[in-house]
Amino acid sequence: MTNVSIIGIGQTDVREHWDTSIRHLAWYAIEAAMDDAHHNQIDAIYVGNMLAGQLSNQNHLGALVADFAGLRGTEALTVEAADASGGAALRQAVLAVQSGLVQTALVVGVEKVTDESGATIPAALATALDADYEAIHGQTLSGAAGVMMRRYMHEYGVALADFAGFSVNAHANAAANPRAMYRNKLRPEAFVKAPMTADPVSLFDEAPTGDGAAAVLVTTSERAADMVARPVRILASALATDTVALHDRRDLLWLAAAERSARRAYEMAGLSPTDIDVAELHDSFTILAALSLEACGFAERGQGWQLARDGEIGRGGRIPISTFGGLKARGNPPGATGLYQIVEVAQQLRGTAGDCQVADVRVGLAQNLGGMAGTAVTHILQADS
Amino acid sequence: MTNVSIIGIGQTDVREHWDTSIRHLAWYAIEAAMDDAHHNQIDAIYVGNMLAGQLSNQNHLGALVADFAGLRGTEALTVEAADASGGAALRQAVLAVQSGLVQTALVVGVEKVTDESGATIPAALATALDADYEAIHGQTLSGAAGVMMRRYMHEYGVALADFAGFSVNAHANAAANPRAMYRNKLRPEAFVKAPMTADPVSLFDEAPTGDGAAAVLVTTSERAADMVARPVRILASALATDTVALHDRRDLLWLAAAERSARRAYEMAGLSPTDIDVAELHDSFTILAALSLEACGFAERGQGWQLARDGEIGRGGRIPISTFGGLKARGNPPGATGLYQIVEVAQQLRGTAGDCQVADVRVGLAQNLGGMAGTAVTHILQADS
Repeated sequence: MTNVSIIGIGQTDVREHWDTSIRHLAWYAIEAAMDDAHHNQIDAIYVGNMLAGQLSNQNHLGALVADFAGLRGTEALTVEAADASGGAALRQAVLAVQSGLVQTALVVGVEKVTDESGATIPAALATALDADYEAIHGQTLSGAAGVMMRRYMHEYGVALADFAGFSVNAHANAAANPRAMYRNKLRPEAFVKAPMTADPVSLFDEAPTGDGAAAVLVTTSERAADMVARPVRILASALATDTVALHDRRDLLWLAAAERSARRAYEMAGLSPTDIDVAELHDSFTILAALSLEACGFAERGQGWQLARDGEIGRGGRIPISTFGGLKARGNPPGATGLYQIVEVAQQLRGTAGDCQVADVRVGLAQNLGGMAGTAVTHILQADS
Repeated sequence: MTNVSIIGIGQTDVREHWDTSIRHLAWYAIEAAMDDAHHNQIDAIYVGNMLAGQLSNQNHLGALVADFAGLRGTEALTVEAADASGGAALRQAVLAVQSGLVQTALVVGVEKVTDESGATIPAALATALDADYEAIHGQTLSGAAGVMMRRYMHEYGVALADFAGFSVNAHANAAANPRAMYRNKLRPEAFVKAPMTADPVSLFDEAPTGDGAAAVLVTTSERAADMVARPVRILASALATDTVALHDRRDLLWLAAAERSARRAYEMAGLSPTDIDVAELHDSFTILAALSLEACGFAERGQGWQLARDGEIGRGGRIPISTFGGLKARGNPPGATGLYQIVEVAQQLRGTAGDCQVADVRVGLAQNLGGMAGTAVTHILQADS
C-alpha cells in the first residue's frame, strides 16, 4: 500500500468576500498551498464544492479552476457530497495517489455564497436534505438539527445551557485565528438567550455560512520526504453514508455514517480514540458536535455534551475540538469546510498553529459531515517522523 | 498495475420521465447493472450528475442513491464535470479499483431535467460555460456551438449540407435502439431546412436533453474473469481539461482536451486510432462530432466532416460512431450521457447490440465532453478474451 502525505496547505479568510469571484477564492488557496510546498507540478485536481451551480450559475469548476490556477489541461473535476464535499474530494485524491496513476494531486474546497442573499442561501443549503420527502415540506438544515437536538435533550435530560460549552469553546479558539469569520468571545449567558432559529437551535449554535477556500497538495509519502521538511501523513481516509432523510433512520441520536467512517479510519490507522490528540469535528450545529464526539468514540452514547460542560474540548482538555473556531466561529463555506479542517489539523501537527496551538499533538482527526451526516468522511493525520 | 473490467451494465430509456423521480431513474439503471453482473456487493458508488441541485433541488445524491439502491452505508459521492460527469465518474471508479482499496465499484450517471421546463433548462445547461465571461453575456451552449461551427465552415469551406451526414447517421442508428429518445429517420433535405437555434446550429444538429440513467459495475479484471462470462476490460481511462471559455483558446477549431485525453488513452492502451472498431463520440452538437473525429485521430484537421459526407461513420464505415443514436438521437441526459456511451460500447464488444450491432468489434472508444470540451474523458474498452 502506497502511503500518502500532505506537502502543502493553503486557505483564505472565511468571511463575506463580496469583491472576490469563486475562481479567485480557489486560486488564493491553491497559490498558498503551492508556495507552502514549493511545488506546482500537479497531475490531478479535485475541487470540493456544493453550491456554485445554484448560487454562481457555475458548474464545470474543475476545468475552470485548473485553467485559472495556471494548470490548463490538467485532469480536474468537482466532487460533491453536500457540506462533506471537501473531505470527499480529499478522499478521491488519496485513492488517485494510491492507484499509482497520479503522483501529485491538488485538492481545493471552495464555496461562494455571497453572490446571493436572503432566502436563496438556506434554500440552496437545504439541497443537502431529501428534496422529495424533507425539503419540499419546508424542512431546512436548522429544522432538522432542531428535531435531533430536542430529542437529545428529552432522551438524556440535557438542558439548553448544557450545550453552551461547544459554542463558547469555538468562539474562544476563533479569537486566536486571524482567518476566522467570528472572532468575538461568547458568554454562556448569551448562548441561552440567543434568538431561536428552529427551537431549540439558536443563532449561537448554528454555524454561519461564509465564503472561503482551502487547499492541500498530496503525494506519496516517499516523495514527500524529499520535498518538504514536515510532511503530514494521511494515516487513514474513510467515507461512509447513511440515509439522507432523518425519518428513515432507526435511531435519530446515532450518526451511523460518522461512526462507520471513524471506525474504518481507526482500523486503517491501527489506532483508537485515545490516540487522538486533536479533532476537528463537524460542528455545523451544536447537536452534531455532541453526536460526533459519541460517534468517534470520544464519549459514550448520550454523554458527548458532558465533554463540553466539563471543559474537556478546550485546548488543554481531553479531546480539543474546533481548535481554530470550528464551523461555528471560523465559519462554514460548505464545500470547503472539510479542507479547512484538514489544513487546521495539519497546522496543529506541524506546530504552526500560532495562538491556536494545542500542546504535544502527534495525531489528529478530521471528520466532515454532509447534511445531517448522510455522508461522513474521516481522515487521521500524523506528522511524518 | 491492476487491470479493471466491467462486469455489469444497465440503462433506462432516454425520454421525458415525468412520472419517475431522479432516485428511481438511478435505481432502475443500477438494478439492471446488478442483475446483469449477478452481483450486488458494492464497496463504493460514483454518481455522475450535473443538474440535480439546480433542477431537482437535490444535492447529496451519493448518499441518497446509495440508500435507495439498498446500499445504505456504502461509500458514495457525486462527480461533476458538466456533461462529462458520467465519464469522469467512471474515471474515479477506475482509480479507486486500481488503488486496491475498493474491490467493486458502481458507477451511475443520472439526470432528470423534466422537473423543470421552459427557459430553466437552457439556463441550467449554460452553467457548463464560463459564468462570469460567457453566460452572463447571454451565451448559451447552442450559441457557443454556433460560433465554432461558423468558423469551421469559413475556415475549411464547408457548407451546411455537408454536416447532414452526422445527424442522418445518428437517427438511422437510433431507429434500431429501443432506448432512444428519437427513433425517427432524418432526411438530409430536412437537415438543411431545420429551424435555426443559433445560426448555423439548427434544431436538427443539437442533441435533445432528456431524462435517463446508465450504470456500470467495475472490479479487477482478475475477479471479473471468475464472475461473468464476458467481462469488458477498460484498457485506458484518461481525463484532460481545456479553458472553459472559448475566447481563451488559441485555436477555436481544435479540441485540446479531447486530443490530450485521447492521446493519453492510446498510449495507455498501446493502440492507435486505426485499432478502434467503434467510437461513441460526444455529438451534443454536430460541430463537436466533427472536431472530435479530428481530435481522436480518425481524421486530419479540417477533415472530420468528410467522414460523415462519405458515409464512413455508419455501421459499415471506417469508424462507426453514434451506433445507438449518439447524444443526437438516443438523447442527452447530461450527467448520464458518458455512461450511456460506455454501456453502448460494452454492448458492441459483447456482441449484444441487437440491430445496432457493428460487425467484428474488438476495441471500442468512448469520449465524453463537458461543455465545449472544457473537459474530455476518453475510455478504451476491449472484450476480455
